[in-house]
Order: sequence, then C-alpha cells, then structure tokens
Amino acid sequence: MSTSSAAAAARHYAETHQELFLADLKELLRIPSISTLPEHREDVRRAAELVATHLHRAGLEHVEVISTQGHPLVYGEWLHAPNKPTMLLYGHYDVQPVDPRALWDSDPFEPTVKGDELFARGASDDKGQMLALVKALESLHQANGGFPVNVKVLIEGEEEAGGESIEAYVKEHPERLAADVALIYDTGMPAAGIPAITYGLRGILYTELEVRGAKRDLHSGSYGGVAPNPLHALALILSGLKDRDGHIHIPGFYDRVRPVTEQERKNWASYPFDIDAALKQEMGVSVLPGETEYPTEERRTARPTLEVHGIIGGFTGKGAKTVISNVVTAKVSMRLVPDQHPAEIFPLFERAVQSLCPPGNEVTVRNLHGGDAVLLPLESHWMSLATTALKKVFGRDPVFLREGGSIPIGALFDSVLHAPTIFIGFALPDDNAHAPNEKYYLPNYALAIQSAIELLCEVGHA
Amino acid sequence: MSTSSAAAAARHYAETHQELFLADLKELLRIPSISTLPEHREDVRRAAELVATHLHRAGLEHVEVISTQGHPLVYGEWLHAPNKPTMLLYGHYDVQPVDPRALWDSDPFEPTVKGDELFARGASDDKGQMLALVKALESLHQANGGFPVNVKVLIEGEEEAGGESIEAYVKEHPERLAADVALIYDTGMPAAGIPAITYGLRGILYTELEVRGAKRDLHSGSYGGVAPNPLHALALILSGLKDRDGHIHIPGFYDRVRPVTEQERKNWASYPFDIDAALKQEMGVSVLPGETEYPTEERRTARPTLEVHGIIGGFTGKGAKTVISNVVTAKVSMRLVPDQHPAEIFPLFERAVQSLCPPGNEVTVRNLHGGDAVLLPLESHWMSLATTALKKVFGRDPVFLREGGSIPIGALFDSVLHAPTIFIGFALPDDNAHAPNEKYYLPNYALAIQSAIELLCEVGHA
Repeated sequence: MSTSSAAAAARHYAETHQELFLADLKELLRIPSISTLPEHREDVRRAAELVATHLHRAGLEHVEVISTQGHPLVYGEWLHAPNKPTMLLYGHYDVQPVDPRALWDSDPFEPTVKGDELFARGASDDKGQMLALVKALESLHQANGGFPVNVKVLIEGEEEAGGESIEAYVKEHPERLAADVALIYDTGMPAAGIPAITYGLRGILYTELEVRGAKRDLHSGSYGGVAPNPLHALALILSGLKDRDGHIHIPGFYDRVRPVTEQERKNWASYPFDIDAALKQEMGVSVLPGETEYPTEERRTARPTLEVHGIIGGFTGKGAKTVISNVVTAKVSMRLVPDQHPAEIFPLFERAVQSLCPPGNEVTVRNLHGGDAVLLPLESHWMSLATTALKKVFGRDPVFLREGGSIPIGALFDSVLHAPTIFIGFALPDDNAHAPNEKYYLPNYALAIQSAIELLCEVGHA
Repeated sequence: MSTSSAAAAARHYAETHQELFLADLKELLRIPSISTLPEHREDVRRAAELVATHLHRAGLEHVEVISTQGHPLVYGEWLHAPNKPTMLLYGHYDVQPVDPRALWDSDPFEPTVKGDELFARGASDDKGQMLALVKALESLHQANGGFPVNVKVLIEGEEEAGGESIEAYVKEHPERLAADVALIYDTGMPAAGIPAITYGLRGILYTELEVRGAKRDLHSGSYGGVAPNPLHALALILSGLKDRDGHIHIPGFYDRVRPVTEQERKNWASYPFDIDAALKQEMGVSVLPGETEYPTEERRTARPTLEVHGIIGGFTGKGAKTVISNVVTAKVSMRLVPDQHPAEIFPLFERAVQSLCPPGNEVTVRNLHGGDAVLLPLESHWMSLATTALKKVFGRDPVFLREGGSIPIGALFDSVLHAPTIFIGFALPDDNAHAPNEKYYLPNYALAIQSAIELLCEVGHA
C-alpha cells in the first residue's frame, strides 16, 4: 500500500470514528490529573493507566506505565519498519490546577460541549492534543495494520510541575528512546484555519520567594516606623527586579540573550493577522505594556520575562486589621530565551533578590524548576515534510511561530537524543490554557489527528 | 466619708474580689466578638449584653445597649454628685481577628492562665483594660454606696473596625455625653512596674487597593512580555509610595506634620529603659529599619507611617503555576500625626496610587476608615491628678508617652465634647496586641482597677 493510500485509509477511519474519539477524550478529561497538587497523586496515576490503554488500542507494543520519583511516564513502541525513520511522539496527560474555581462556568472536570467548543481543564493543554497523536496512530494501525515509520511514544505526567522525571528518564535511556525526529503536539495556532509550526520556545526558571521580618506579627500602631514589613520588602524586591517599562534589573541577566534574525522580523511582519489587535482583544486591554521598543511578537516569544504569579501574606479577610505580618511568600518565574540557561540565571536572580531585600528582612529564594529554550532552523528536511503534511490537511501553508511558552522536553530531546523536534499545535489563542474555562476547538481535534496521519506518512515516504 | 477613705474601702473591696473579677474577665474573653468579621455579629452583641450586665452590677443607672448601624454601644451613668466633675469612661469590648490561628499556643477564645499571664484574644486589648474600669466602679459603689464624681460610661464594639457608630453617636448626643474629662484605658506601659500616661496618639487612614489587569487570568508563556501583571503593578505602587528608607512619596503628605518639641525629645532621652534594645528584642531583629535620621520614639509615635497589612492574589498553593493573575488586593494604612487629617490625606494618597499604577492596569482605592491624631498638653490639672493617682498605686511617678497606635475616639471627645482625655494604659510591650498569643499581665489587671479607683477619688477631691 502506498503511503498516500495509507494516509487516505487512516483519515477515513478517523473521520468515521470521530464520535468515539471524542468520548475517549471526555473520559480522560474527567480525571483531575493535577500534577502539582499532592492530593491528586492517585488521579494522575489513573490518567496514566488510561493513556496506556489507548496506546495498546493504537497497536503499540511493550506498552508500559513507568513509575518514577514523581508521576508515571507512559511508553509504547512499534519498530517494524526497517530502513524507515523512527519518530518519537510526545505529549502530557497532566493538567494545571483549576483555581480560581469560582470563575469556571462549568465543572473543570466534567467536559462540557457548547457549539464547537469542548470546555474542561486540559482540553487543549494537553490531553486533547496528546490524544490526537494517539488516535492518529490508532487510525493508521486500524486502517493499515501497521505504521509507515517506526514509532515510539512517550507521554509524561509532570509537564505542568517541572518535568523532572522525564528528564531523568531520557538521560538514563537514550538507546531506548533513540529517534530520528520528535513530534510534539503542545503548542498553538494563531487562528482557526491557519496551521502553525512552532520553531522556537522560551525556557523557564520558576522560583518561590519567602520574605520574613520580625519573629512575630506586630501591631502597626506600636511598631510602625521601626519595624520590618516583609510585604513592603517584597514590593521593593519585585519592583527592583523589573521596572514599569518591563526592563529586568538582574545584573548579567541579558548577557547571553541571542538576538532575533532579520528573517524572523520579516516573518512576524508578514503574519496574516493583526497580532496587536488580537492580543488586546484577548486580554481586554487598550495597551500592551512591557518593552515597547521591541516588536510585539519578539516581546512575547523571543525576549526573556520576569513575572510574579502569586502573593500571599498578612491580613486578607474583609475589613481592617492593623497588623504588620512577619512573613509573605511569592511565586516568581522568568521565561528564558536562547542562550540563557536556568542553572546560570538562578544564581544571578538570587543575588539580585538578596541585594534588593531591605534591612531587617530576610529572604529565601527557592528554585522550583527550570528548562532550556528551544530554537530550530527554519530550513530543514523535517520542517519541509511537516509543511507538506499540514498543507494537505488545511489546504494552505503553515505559519512559522516562535512561542512564548516553555516545553523543556524539546531542548532535552535535542541535547540527549540529538533528535530535532517538530512542534505542531492546535490550541487557539482564546483556549484559556492555565486559566478558568479552558477549552478546545473541536474541529481542531479532528484536524490534529489528520495532520499527524499525513505527517507520519510523509516521513515514511521521504 | 473622705475621698481617701472611700478609695481605701474600694481598694480593699477590689483586693478581696480579685478572683471573681478574673472569672468575669474570662467569661467576657470567651465571646469571640471580632467586629470586623460579619460572621461574628451575634457574638459581638452577646459581648455587649454581658458588658451591660457588669455596668448594672457596678451601680450605674440608665444602662442601655444602644443599637447602631454597626455594632452596639453600651452606656450607663450615675449623676448624683452635684458640684463634682463628670467623668466619661471609655473602652471597647470588640477584638481583632485571630488569624493566623495556627500560631496560637492555646485557643484564642478559651482564656488560659500561665503563671502571671492570661492568654486570650482581647485579654489586654481591650477587654481586660475596659473591664478594669468597670470593676473599679463596682468596687467604689459596693464599698461606698456611690461615686466621688459623676460618672458616664460608654463602651463600644467597633474600635477594631473603624468606630463609625460611636462617632455618629457622640456627634448626635453631645448633651447626654457632656463631661469635664474622659478616661480611656486602651494604651500601654513601657514595662511592668512603670505606670504611664499617654498624651499623644497617632491618627489613622485605612485603605484597600484592588489592582486589575487583563479581563481574565493569562498564561505567562503566551502573554508574558505584553500582558499587564497586577501583582507586579502593586509592587510598583507600594514601592513607589514608600522607599526602603521609610520615606513616604505622596506629594503633600508631610506638609502639615507638626514637629515634636524639645521637651518631648528630652522626655524620650530620659526614659528609664533602653527603647532600642527593648524593641529589637520584642521583634527579634538586629536593626530598626525606617527613617533612621529620627530618634526611635519619634519614629514610632510622632512620625507618620505607611504600612501594607496584607496582599493576596494569583496562585498561592504548593508548587508552580504559570499564571498571570488579573487581580490582586492589598490593605494599606497610614498612621497620621497632628495636624494630618484623614479626609485631607486620602485624596493625596489616591492620586499618588493612581499615578504610580503602570499602564494596562487599573487600581481602585477604597477608604475603609480614618481617625485624627491626639496630642494633649503635658501641663494640665487632669494630668496632675492622674499623676498623683498612679503614684499612690505604683509608688512612683508615671512616664509620659506618645504612642504610635490610634484611638480616634480621644480626638472626637476633644472636638465634640470639648473634654480632654486622660489615656492610662496597662498593656505591656510583649502583650501581642493584634497578634497570635495576645496576653494580659494579670498583676496589671489589679493595678488598673486600683488606679481607676484612686483617679476617680482624686478628681472628686480636687
């Protein structure tokens, strides 16, 4: 059977099984596999077991739920295509927390279809995309009895919680995972109907600060004027780290930032949509604050950032309490770009935080997790195959994106397995990833399956 | 009966009833009359009813629990001493919230005696001090069948929540409350055995800030670099309002600050204890941060301050979440000094906050409550009588203090009733007012009762 008829048969199978594939996705979405919250540890494992079931059903062999120090990995393979390339497919089955729960219009773990949208935590990030890869495999296998390439699948459950276990596993098992190219579905597209290949992703360094002042809470009347106030100390630290124009004041922070190329600037300028207007509309703001001297796409994909994600300390109830709290905590992360590395940035960050901490307070800086940025050459054999596959499904060329998010596993596949990664994504900008009312545009679930079918056939044919 | 034998009889009565008075205090402390939390509204009323019972028992007439827009006032009077002065006695029966509850070593509403200390929320602020006034009245009345002066008692239940109701009541009933002098027990003494009269108190302006950014929470990967971050905006605002040296940058804020006198500086220098060492020990710090160019006592009693009391926003759970929250709230108060007035300072504050708020964010500033500072002349008839009374009980002259806290009712008695206030206090610096493990040094309960007995007799005798 030719690869083009193999693709056609698999696409037909996928089309006729779309209802079942949706039911499979809903079942997976019902499991609250929040990897960062210890109380969901068993849910995370249940999700892993369910993913393993789907790998079996897709015709993969040696399917295994691999226990780790953290959450399980799920692995499966099919290696019966001699002289064909080996593709390593990756996704994640864990999800972000759901708070603030009150802002969800429906239960985050009871998938709810409204029109073309499926609402649930993890709908697009990443259960809906990850399962599309698996369902593409199932379709190929059911329609053709095998695959046009050798296939390895590695699905993790810690992507939203640092991904330490997969990092250790990849480093310990480079032979088992050896591949010519990796395919990851965990990114986005700029708008419905416009396919996208992501060639760049930012890295990340996620930290927690704890500022302490006096040995106990104090009355602001009796002590105000002579007391350390950790909440104010935190304000001084955060405002000292980044100014109101978005410039980060950590000595050495920008030293290794790789500049963007002229071609990238041209790419951004040629986008077939108004990115500024789209972002303002998505966020409901009238300005895009930050380093306004850089183009918008550069700022959100190729410039490093520093953001505070949460602060809690002192009296936060209704009404008034005149207390000077003796402790406050904050979560602070930096998005990193090539060639900034978290291990090099953390000590610079910690030193800057310590030097900004005012007298009478002590600050502890914890490194929660980190990952490198990714940047792939736009001109390559694999990019060309992916372009062809997407064109067959969407009827148009994909756009090439740098994304602002972080998928450290791509950098790891590159450095350990020497396998470049093709990042294709089907999340829309308004899919509310990491936010209340996360959703998935259901036509993209089908398109994601079709695209993976075509790409595997292209790779097998090339 | 001479006033000195009246005092002796009453003091004897108090000494022989100290066990009962302690039981009465414990009963009152068991009621969680947290005025700032709506869920404790009924508890606050129960506390008011219990206070009224004690006013009856003290021989007062026309005892009344007065309903208000907020929490009840409790009033009682005895006006059968013609040609004698009228004294207005004030205290409050409401208490601060108890969070963080986990830091209490015993139940905050189950009074626990350890050695000479009684642990409970409100033990010294102000149930234990307020009840001492009432038990002094009871002792005088039981021992002598009446009082050496005319007495009015007004106890409130909103002191920790802004005190709006008493302000309205005083303004509406100046004849009923007319008095020659007021006596308030709600301040402190520098150390056990050293009686203190407080002649100055700071005012207060208590506010709440709410900063909002995008219309929803955002993924820091996709939007970091172009998104408003209200948490960071808050840090910019707070650090812009006050720098690391304690200087407040609100245009016009310091314009009306009344300078301290040479006599006050001398007073502070002559304190019979090392205030810096004591404060460092109480707070467990090695430096006293703030405006170090001013003497310590001036900084904490005669200089205005700006403190943030609580911040909550974004992801505050365990682990990592890469969210840019779209809202954060903070409680911020300023302690004011003569002649700063909250109504004049609030617009200056709001303007400064607005101008510090970075682009893409919006900030709302709420005025929760305010009150004027108090400053009484050191040389006066009433001060002299209070000095004599305290000397009789303690065997030594009192020290004269300015305190950093705020008791706006003193300013109100002065402006509306034209009655100066004598502030005498029995809280110790380590009594943990407003903090976990609040306590009362029990010998001070007895001394507070004795001191009020002597003072009423001094005023009646003069």
